[in-house]
Amino acid sequence: KDERITLAHGAGGKATHTLIEAVFLEAFRNPLLEPLEDQAVLSLGGPRLAFTTDSFVVHPLFFPGGDIGELAVNGTVNDLAMSGARPRYLSSGFIVEEGLPTEDLVRIAESMARAAEAAGVQIVTGDTKVVERGKADGCYINTAGVGVISHDLTLGASRARPGDVVLVSGPIGDHGITIMLARGELDIEADLTSDTAPLADLVDRLLAAAPGVRCLRDATRGGVATVLNEVARASDVAVVLDERAVPVRTEVRGASEILGIDPLYVACEGRFIAVVAPEDADAALDALRTHPQGTEAAVIGQVKADPPSLVLLKTEFGGTRIVDVLVGDPLPRIC
Amino acid sequence: KDERITLAHGAGGKATHTLIEAVFLEAFRNPLLEPLEDQAVLSLGGPRLAFTTDSFVVHPLFFPGGDIGELAVNGTVNDLAMSGARPRYLSSGFIVEEGLPTEDLVRIAESMARAAEAAGVQIVTGDTKVVERGKADGCYINTAGVGVISHDLTLGASRARPGDVVLVSGPIGDHGITIMLARGELDIEADLTSDTAPLADLVDRLLAAAPGVRCLRDATRGGVATVLNEVARASDVAVVLDERAVPVRTEVRGASEILGIDPLYVACEGRFIAVVAPEDADAALDALRTHPQGTEAAVIGQVKADPPSLVLLKTEFGGTRIVDVLVGDPLPRIC
Ligand SMILES: Nc1ncnc2c1ncn2[C@@H]1O[C@H](COP(=O)(O)OP(=O)(O)OP(=O)(O)O)[C@@H](O)[C@H]1O
Ligand SMILES: Nc1ncnc2c1ncn2[C@@H]1O[C@H](COP(=O)(O)OP(=O)(O)OP(=O)(O)O)[C@@H](O)[C@H]1O
Ligand SMILES: [Mg+2]
Ligand SMILES: [Mg+2]
Ligand SMILES: [Mg+2]
Ligand SMILES: [Mg+2]
Ligand SMILES: [Mg+2]
Ligand SMILES: [Mg+2]
Repeated sequence: KDERITLAHGAGGKATHTLIEAVFLEAFRNPLLEPLEDQAVLSLGGPRLAFTTDSFVVHPLFFPGGDIGELAVNGTVNDLAMSGARPRYLSSGFIVEEGLPTEDLVRIAESMARAAEAAGVQIVTGDTKVVERGKADGCYINTAGVGVISHDLTLGASRARPGDVVLVSGPIGDHGITIMLARGELDIEADLTSDTAPLADLVDRLLAAAPGVRCLRDATRGGVATVLNEVARASDVAVVLDERAVPVRTEVRGASEILGIDPLYVACEGRFIAVVAPEDADAALDALRTHPQGTEAAVIGQVKADPPSLVLLKTEFGGTRIVDVLVGDPLPRIC
Repeated sequence: KDERITLAHGAGGKATHTLIEAVFLEAFRNPLLEPLEDQAVLSLGGPRLAFTTDSFVVHPLFFPGGDIGELAVNGTVNDLAMSGARPRYLSSGFIVEEGLPTEDLVRIAESMARAAEAAGVQIVTGDTKVVERGKADGCYINTAGVGVISHDLTLGASRARPGDVVLVSGPIGDHGITIMLARGELDIEADLTSDTAPLADLVDRLLAAAPGVRCLRDATRGGVATVLNEVARASDVAVVLDERAVPVRTEVRGASEILGIDPLYVACEGRFIAVVAPEDADAALDALRTHPQGTEAAVIGQVKADPPSLVLLKTEFGGTRIVDVLVGDPLPRIC
């Protein structure tokens, strides 16, 4: 265990998981937290409810295709949607740095309001704290969300079985690369915008068409590679990806090469991975592709029995290599 | 409207309310947020649910009688309890500064776990972000909470009526003064600890004995003066306080004088105000006093028709003065 917290602990990969398990799960352990799904499922006397939270520390606050406010709504909406819940209510917790222009805060709040409207959720409670100049970076936002689960399916990272098919809902990595470019640290321009979007509607459509869905995960920090590693471990199976099948935009591929990072590790904020029973794979792909948010959905791999707990990539050149969880933090603070 | 955010916007008083109404309520407006109660009440097909959130940015992280973790649990538990809900589930959203000793994080998580256990809640979902050195102050924590409301009472700041009685559950200001002393900025020592505590149990007892409770508010940022101003405005009544009746420890009184602040504005993290119909006032006081957390509860004032929307204080010396909402931020980052 590291003696001090490093940026890697926030990257969503190996260090994050170690920290969560060794510190938070260890302290809080209970059956609802234990599976470490994107949301907890609560039974409180009515329909099952999904409950989740995310904080957002993205830098810069405004970027092509979105801003921290829109991200804060869609991020939590999507962690609810990954249980097949209909997202209903959000909280909005702001930590604002002294000196932030009020008009920036207004712009962010208005953007949250628009995103909430688009996702069909209401922001019903909140909190506002201010810290001294230099003690934050403009503003940080936490949202928590409550959604209603009205189907009877049980989804979870531990439910993948050999033979299952792995789908992605669209091209990957747009969000992470957009943020890196928005920082101006790379001397390239690319016609790219964040993929931030609310996914509940697309998930609804998918679950209606393909009740054999085993598990859904939005591919945020750590990207597709990291969420598939979570599935491989939780289900004790192998996930075998076909590199040629993974949809990646040319601009993302180019910028990733310059950054020296594999697009499989780059965060999306509007894409998810679905693991689906083989007999429902065609219906699932069709359901995704005929929805405006899923036109570029693709089958990208298969679940196998061996080697258990690993993600393998069949490369374009015919080789096979292990795709480990993300190590380090090549793209800090992208959400 | 100020052009930039100032510390006063985070103090819980006048500037905070103006900001919340002009920016957040304006953008998010809906019937559940609109009353600006301590929690939103949700109807999702089962029992009524309470939903709330708070972020915690207290400095220092550890202080006599508690730490940021315990505060983060009790604060959200208490905003749920103010609706008479039984707190059930919490989220835990951490924003950690690069460089924080891991052992501090462990200590904080363990403290949250103990506080959750004591309050009868489970921490079922969370999130962990890391920001660069200097971009936070050790760590910030957001908690959101869900509770179950099993009574039929409707509580709210707008329900106070002339003749009602105002109670406080214990001595005020311990928490805020403890934090100021812990910073070592004042050259005094006092035998004082934070009053942070979960209040749901005490509230249960109160509501069972006194169904005529109109409204409950925990006296956090802005103190008793600020929450009573909220009640006076929302109900369009006067609240008349008796200065001699307000329980304030000698140490708090002394330190407040040195700091030049009235204890009525100093935050508590384990005290609440109850407005109670006159016929239930005795039962309410009795219910509080016979519970270990309420032994020093007191009747501190009365609701009158005039002057509407104001809080008045009958001073020890026989005079009467207006107690306005908190202006400025004399005690920054106490929670
Ligand atoms: N501080 C914490 N306390 C308790 N549980 C936590 C904490 N941080 C993360 N978790 C849990 O760990 C799991 C992984 O969290 P993580 O934030 O990586 O998921 P995510 O929200 O889907 O990803 P992202 O934050 O990149 O959108 C979840 O089950 C989450 O509830
Ligand atoms: N950023 C925000 N977005 C939406 N609503 C907000 C926001 N900040 C505060 N509110 C709402 O404003 C009201 C007052 O919030 P406040 O945080 O002052 O209450 P509290 O939690 O009881 O006090 P404290 O935070 O000092 O414990 C609540 O109804 C809260 O839901
Ligand atoms: Mg997720
Ligand atoms: Mg998430
Ligand atoms: Mg609050
Ligand atoms: Mg409160
Ligand atoms: Mg509060
Ligand atoms: Mg998260």
